[in-house]
Amino acid sequence: MKNGQPFEEVIGIIGGGQLGKMLIESCQPWNLNYHILEASSGAPAVRYAHRFVEGSLHDSDAIKELAQTCDVLTFEIEHIDVQTLKYLEQQGKRVIPSSNLLEIIQDKGVQKRFYRNHNIPTSPFEIVESAQVKEAVDRLDGAKAVVKSCKGGYDGKGVFIADKKDFQLNQMPFDGPCVVEQFAAGSKEVSVLVARNASGDMKTYPLSEMVFDPELNLVDYLFAPGTVRASFAKQIEQVAIQTIESMKGVGIFAVEFFVSEELDRIWVNEVAPRPHNSGHHTIEACVCSQYEQLNRILLNLPLGDTALRKPAVMMNLIGPEGVTGKYRIEGLAEALRDVDVHFHWYDKEVTKPGRKMGHITVLAETVDLALKKAKQMRDRINIVAYEA
Amino acid sequence: MKNGQPFEEVIGIIGGGQLGKMLIESCQPWNLNYHILEASSGAPAVRYAHRFVEGSLHDSDAIKELAQTCDVLTFEIEHIDVQTLKYLEQQGKRVIPSSNLLEIIQDKGVQKRFYRNHNIPTSPFEIVESAQVKEAVDRLDGAKAVVKSCKGGYDGKGVFIADKKDFQLNQMPFDGPCVVEQFAAGSKEVSVLVARNASGDMKTYPLSEMVFDPELNLVDYLFAPGTVRASFAKQIEQVAIQTIESMKGVGIFAVEFFVSEELDRIWVNEVAPRPHNSGHHTIEACVCSQYEQLNRILLNLPLGDTALRKPAVMMNLIGPEGVTGKYRIEGLAEALRDVDVHFHWYDKEVTKPGRKMGHITVLAETVDLALKKAKQMRDRINIVAYEA
Repeated sequence: MKNGQPFEEVIGIIGGGQLGKMLIESCQPWNLNYHILEASSGAPAVRYAHRFVEGSLHDSDAIKELAQTCDVLTFEIEHIDVQTLKYLEQQGKRVIPSSNLLEIIQDKGVQKRFYRNHNIPTSPFEIVESAQVKEAVDRLDGAKAVVKSCKGGYDGKGVFIADKKDFQLNQMPFDGPCVVEQFAAGSKEVSVLVARNASGDMKTYPLSEMVFDPELNLVDYLFAPGTVRASFAKQIEQVAIQTIESMKGVGIFAVEFFVSEELDRIWVNEVAPRPHNSGHHTIEACVCSQYEQLNRILLNLPLGDTALRKPAVMMNLIGPEGVTGKYRIEGLAEALRDVDVHFHWYDKEVTKPGRKMGHITVLAETVDLALKKAKQMRDRINIVAYEA
Repeated sequence: MKNGQPFEEVIGIIGGGQLGKMLIESCQPWNLNYHILEASSGAPAVRYAHRFVEGSLHDSDAIKELAQTCDVLTFEIEHIDVQTLKYLEQQGKRVIPSSNLLEIIQDKGVQKRFYRNHNIPTSPFEIVESAQVKEAVDRLDGAKAVVKSCKGGYDGKGVFIADKKDFQLNQMPFDGPCVVEQFAAGSKEVSVLVARNASGDMKTYPLSEMVFDPELNLVDYLFAPGTVRASFAKQIEQVAIQTIESMKGVGIFAVEFFVSEELDRIWVNEVAPRPHNSGHHTIEACVCSQYEQLNRILLNLPLGDTALRKPAVMMNLIGPEGVTGKYRIEGLAEALRDVDVHFHWYDKEVTKPGRKMGHITVLAETVDLALKKAKQMRDRINIVAYEA
């Protein structure tokens, strides 16, 4: 063990975005050592790295170069070279979550089949080539279907809502194998974060409920606790646990659901095998955040407590329309005037419309009160074009 | 304003110890820019500096060199060159807290006279040369007196308890001008953190109560809320406010008291013009920590909320007897098993007996429960000699 360091392990992170930044920030009081692989030296987490490997997340040699100096590897984005992770595991490197799990997640078709094969409730679906999408849409129940590209979708990209009535194949924005699934009409979107360590200990975070921006198809805001009744929330939690246990997942996972109390319906939408947007609020709202939790898992420490200290609302701060490139932020002094408001900025060099630039979390006695404050706070913060 | 940065100002910190480290950690989500002057490149805060000036905190040129690239200066230790701060203020540089205030604090005699002149209650005292200490001790009430060197005392150094019965001048461990003051027999030591910004807005933190290690004369542990009754706590808070208003203080201040409810006695002991050991618990226990609060003041932002989320106990982790130099830390996995326990390590290169190496904070439903957990946690953590 190194002199003076509480923890010996060097943690390698594949990807240097905001999730990596918050992962590092969460345990700065512990003085952990992080090495980072990232394509852009200006990415959010890079300035915290003790060693920075500049390279593509798909470049096998770059991942191996990162791994050389690390005791354990994790990733903050799914679209990375999984074969190299497999190779490194065979060489004895700890990779969290595992390459097997990542392979299930990376392909939305494989992921859906996994749910079916493990009796995990999910929406009815077919996997077809893009040329067969129209027939698949027609075969499904409901007025609408969701078409997802099996590979490469992220933040609403690679997803298309097909209206059965007038859907034409030439509307499809992508080719290749697709999941075509029943649209979850009348559902709420909720997320349960699940932490599972190498010993199989598990903890779940209190369910959070997401409200989407229909235009950007990104989380607009999220609140916890959710509005579903306790017994139904318990059922959802059980499905989240079943999902991660089936995957033998080690790490932190966001299990995203479409749920309807009226229809008594719980559908797993998808699993994110990493800290997730739906868990940003845990930084201030929970005893142990999703980020500290992942660090604990990487270091083989006991899991931290997932209890919610107070009701919370989290809102993304999104790059506005009409501003691309360098930018300034206005209104912060006014925005930070309220009680128990928390501001996170991701340190991105340029903004573009729809890009996640930061977020705010507000804690209050009730979700309603927190939401009111959060909306007011977000209204005060403006991202504007930079003029030197 | 710089591209993409929420805050334009560069903050200069004189001193790179653990207080600077925690100041920086508190607002990492805001991506602030810190430049640091520090004698040792291995000091706790240095690795977070965007610019590091290596030099003595008493070196006028080094302080000026730091100031050149900074919009506002602060310090995390009192024993620095105050004349240079005065000069920089005259040149228009913002220094927080001000050099005037620091001059009052740096000399314990000047500080005591300030209290007397501003009707701030403090223990009866005289200021004498070391050769006259015996007579001054004899003139004071009580069986014991406290003798403090006017200049340079820190963490219990430069302080001597004189037993009136058998005190001899040759027991004195220091020379020069001294404050000789009545020993506060039967008192509790409590601290009130006061935040005051440039507009004169003030907020106080809930009173915390300190329990000292009698051998090391360092805080052994601290808890909040304290055990004094509410009306008495309110009086203490009023004296804390009076003290910082009298000093026209801008910054974060720990006003330390000796208090006795039985004697209805409130004595200001001294003021620390910076984040303080008695406020470490605010990182997890309060809505806005003492560190975030100072950042807000440095940036001219509105003050944050000082409310205590939960009862808390903070314990210092002190370098043990018999271990000097390089070290390892044992027992952390076990120590971090409990709920709502928080570990801070200061990243110091070497340990020595009595040195503050880190701290733990435990939150719980009651102070008693937190104290029980904190003691158990501290017992599990061991600093041992490093063997390569």
